[in-house]
Amino acid sequence: MLSKSRISFIKSLHQKKFRNEHGLFIVEGIKSVTEFIRSDYEVQFIFHTPHTSPNLLNLSRNIKAEEVSLSELEKISTLTSPKDALALVKIPDDGERQLSEQDSVSLILDGIQDPGNMGTIIRTAEWFGFKQLICSLDTVEVYNPKVVQATMGSLSRIKILYTDLESFLSKNQAPVYGTLLNGRSIYKTDFLAKGLLILGNEGNGIRPEIQKYITHPVTIPRFGEAESLNVAIAAAICCSEIRRRE
Amino acid sequence: MLSKSRISFIKSLHQKKFRNEHGLFIVEGIKSVTEFIRSDYEVQFIFHTPHTSPNLLNLSRNIKAEEVSLSELEKISTLTSPKDALALVKIPDDGERQLSEQDSVSLILDGIQDPGNMGTIIRTAEWFGFKQLICSLDTVEVYNPKVVQATMGSLSRIKILYTDLESFLSKNQAPVYGTLLNGRSIYKTDFLAKGLLILGNEGNGIRPEIQKYITHPVTIPRFGEAESLNVAIAAAICCSEIRRRE
Repeated sequence: MLSKSRISFIKSLHQKKFRNEHGLFIVEGIKSVTEFIRSDYEVQFIFHTPHTSPNLLNLSRNIKAEEVSLSELEKISTLTSPKDALALVKIPDDGERQLSEQDSVSLILDGIQDPGNMGTIIRTAEWFGFKQLICSLDTVEVYNPKVVQATMGSLSRIKILYTDLESFLSKNQAPVYGTLLNGRSIYKTDFLAKGLLILGNEGNGIRPEIQKYITHPVTIPRFGEAESLNVAIAAAICCSEIRRRE
Repeated sequence: MLSKSRISFIKSLHQKKFRNEHGLFIVEGIKSVTEFIRSDYEVQFIFHTPHTSPNLLNLSRNIKAEEVSLSELEKISTLTSPKDALALVKIPDDGERQLSEQDSVSLILDGIQDPGNMGTIIRTAEWFGFKQLICSLDTVEVYNPKVVQATMGSLSRIKILYTDLESFLSKNQAPVYGTLLNGRSIYKTDFLAKGLLILGNEGNGIRPEIQKYITHPVTIPRFGEAESLNVAIAAAICCSEIRRRE
């Protein structure tokens, strides 16, 4: 039985303020929980129903765990229909999130706000083998439960760094690609071995103060009349175009 | 002032059952409403706040309209934060939705369930100049307010046909592309001038009874470890790959 105070502690992690205070976030579903156990993340506690997989139990032998009923899981879940397992995972220290040596092109997000878009971008970038994502400080928090859910476990395999983009870009020497309205067709763009590719906010695109660092503006050609593409779709096409050249 | 019975009539259109019964669906936001007025759709009634654009008023001269307060708009809106305008639009008769002569490749959706995915696929397909989408009968209803919203107005410029896919495909002579796990890399696939491209359900992919009609299985190459791509992302990459060859 989960005590009232534990329920209220876990529910507090539904909010950013308490995630930051306690340094923990929530991952749900056996598949995602399993992927976090296998990753560099530190899984601190697992709640699972009696019907959980033996595989998860086996993997989590060294992790504190507790069996709960589905109705108890419902009390702590961030989902309308909770899944079979919920884990509390440690938010990495900033020190563990230093930028690695860039391999090929790294993605930069300037102010993505929608958690579903953010999660889908992470899932897609990981599919295409991108190892890290650099985000402006006002980009939606990656440990938001809706972001975590939409990454479908891919968050466990990609490094996310939040930083002041202006200061970051002012020190950068590599070519900077960015999606703008009047850039070169992305189909005809040569991506150099190392570089950065910037995607902007859903409504406003890339901020002017960030645009000025773009050395290679690129555009996804339009064949119909739609005014814009969803940013996760634009990110996917950019990732695909970068990889198809390799 | 909106009467209680009108409010309850409009609210009934939030549900599929009553949309079908009355042959009407809801479009919200000045931008989308304007695009529907300019399209082949028949806009039957517009509710707008005092702050609406003169452009919308001008365009809608021949359409019945009523000025309502924001709090009245909130009562009939499908959105948590309603926008500036809400229109009732006529659902086209099946006769008006006959399949056109195929130009290049046509997209087929087999059982897409998530309204956000459906809306994003429509928005993306329209960006890439696709004129029609063929959907299995169990694909989410396109007049669902969440689908309409996610299309960002693009629904007004693309024809959506629901049909029994097995019967449709059994009569088809053109090559049939479909996204499967072990197909040819989409980067290396030549898309013939006319053809069909099938995308499947979020969890289960393309049904086996539909898979058997695929003459050219294609796969989006994976560079990381993610188990799958979101279907709207896969659709976008397919659309982009088809167009980049033209």
